[in-house]
Amino acid sequence: MGYEFDAAVAVSRTGAGCYRAELDAGWLVGAALNGGYLLSVVGNAVRHELADAGHGDPYTASAYYLSAATPGPATVQVEVRRSGRGSSTVAATLSQDVDGRPQDRLTVLATYGDLSTISGEVRTTARPPGLPAPEECLLTSRAAPEFRSFVPMVDRFAMALDPACAGWAHGRPGGNTWIQGWFRLADDRPVDSLALLTVVDTLPPVTMEMGLPGWAPTLELTVHVRATPAPGLLRIRHETRNFAGGFFEEDCEVWDSADRLVAQSRQLALQPRG
Amino acid sequence: MGYEFDAAVAVSRTGAGCYRAELDAGWLVGAALNGGYLLSVVGNAVRHELADAGHGDPYTASAYYLSAATPGPATVQVEVRRSGRGSSTVAATLSQDVDGRPQDRLTVLATYGDLSTISGEVRTTARPPGLPAPEECLLTSRAAPEFRSFVPMVDRFAMALDPACAGWAHGRPGGNTWIQGWFRLADDRPVDSLALLTVVDTLPPVTMEMGLPGWAPTLELTVHVRATPAPGLLRIRHETRNFAGGFFEEDCEVWDSADRLVAQSRQLALQPRG
Repeated sequence: MGYEFDAAVAVSRTGAGCYRAELDAGWLVGAALNGGYLLSVVGNAVRHELADAGHGDPYTASAYYLSAATPGPATVQVEVRRSGRGSSTVAATLSQDVDGRPQDRLTVLATYGDLSTISGEVRTTARPPGLPAPEECLLTSRAAPEFRSFVPMVDRFAMALDPACAGWAHGRPGGNTWIQGWFRLADDRPVDSLALLTVVDTLPPVTMEMGLPGWAPTLELTVHVRATPAPGLLRIRHETRNFAGGFFEEDCEVWDSADRLVAQSRQLALQPRG
Repeated sequence: MGYEFDAAVAVSRTGAGCYRAELDAGWLVGAALNGGYLLSVVGNAVRHELADAGHGDPYTASAYYLSAATPGPATVQVEVRRSGRGSSTVAATLSQDVDGRPQDRLTVLATYGDLSTISGEVRTTARPPGLPAPEECLLTSRAAPEFRSFVPMVDRFAMALDPACAGWAHGRPGGNTWIQGWFRLADDRPVDSLALLTVVDTLPPVTMEMGLPGWAPTLELTVHVRATPAPGLLRIRHETRNFAGGFFEEDCEVWDSADRLVAQSRQLALQPRG
């Protein structure tokens, strides 16, 4: 039996640089599939394309979202733009047929390499988020049934939110500009570099806790994968510092059980409309 | 008389989505042209391509650097990937002929719109960097002649660095993981959304102040342009928080004279080798 995450991001090669995927309804958030999940599907096609080069880990990936993706068949086209000894850079696009015509859902630039081959001095000044113990946090799997049927994604992982930033879940948004919690994938699948592309986009939008519910479409998401996580629970936190001019950014950090900052991401989203 | 920045990023259309540029030796840093400058050249071609759509401002742009660009002729190919009422998304690549064969220098995804049409609630929690008065700062134009001939870029703008993070300029790196200062373009050209793509990449690498001189090649640079700057000096600051695993990120903020955070950027770079 494989892990459900691997089935959800599975791709099969159908031609030169061309892959087929079956997008999983389990990653729906309302009517659209989660952007981080879609990036992992594209990322998996890229991993296959670069397997012979030995470049299986995204170092950096940038997704630009073009239209909302829906469950069902999809095509990923990967074009290698630079082949180096230590890393490769690709352009890739995921599309779906709509009334017989291909419609692009997201387009991606990414640089891949092999995280196990690199090392270097560590002078990290960032500190992991301070979180209460998991048992003192709020499990998203305990959310109301109507929420869970609107956001099936919450059953793809175990997430325990810091109660200090989860007032929104009880109808009392705290006004905080950040949300943080503990994370692991369903059936304890180890989080590798490919899954990190999804993990950074799993927290509820900070706008929930700011008292601004409603859809906040992502224009762009860039993820830097900095290390393969050690086994164990992850701590994830995201925050906006510049909610202005019609947009807001969300910066996400993922910390592993060895206190390493294993992924950093930033996305630009439209402010929810009242 | 036009501004020198406009001459340096000028493009002329030569065919469908195809533009010609002349890359300016004035933006050299050592043997290679500055990555932010190159992004503005690409960004200017995109601006021309989207002129009819009325989408003249980058909201977000992500550049992946493929090989070092040199002064002289270059070609920018722009492909519109999504045309919307409010914004357009493009893919663009800058290449140069090497021994008669085109070699890609950087490839870019970007979403453009019109900053003057958008507004929204402001709940920014970020605060501008605390800087001494410009006259108490260190002008990079006063650097030693051998430095200025190695980095001709420093004569393209007036930059006054906070002495608290400029010890490296006197051979005594302070160990700080950030550098900040005041900024304006040469001949006082107003900084618009296009120029911001360059501004975010003009500060000396934080690794200088960390006591790690040497070349730190950028893999990826993403810029979010959040507003057109008000007239006057800009304050710019960048910082790394996760120097580890062979890489470091640099987060840059640009603040205008009206205390607005007008641009945020992040880049991923390789740690300098010894």
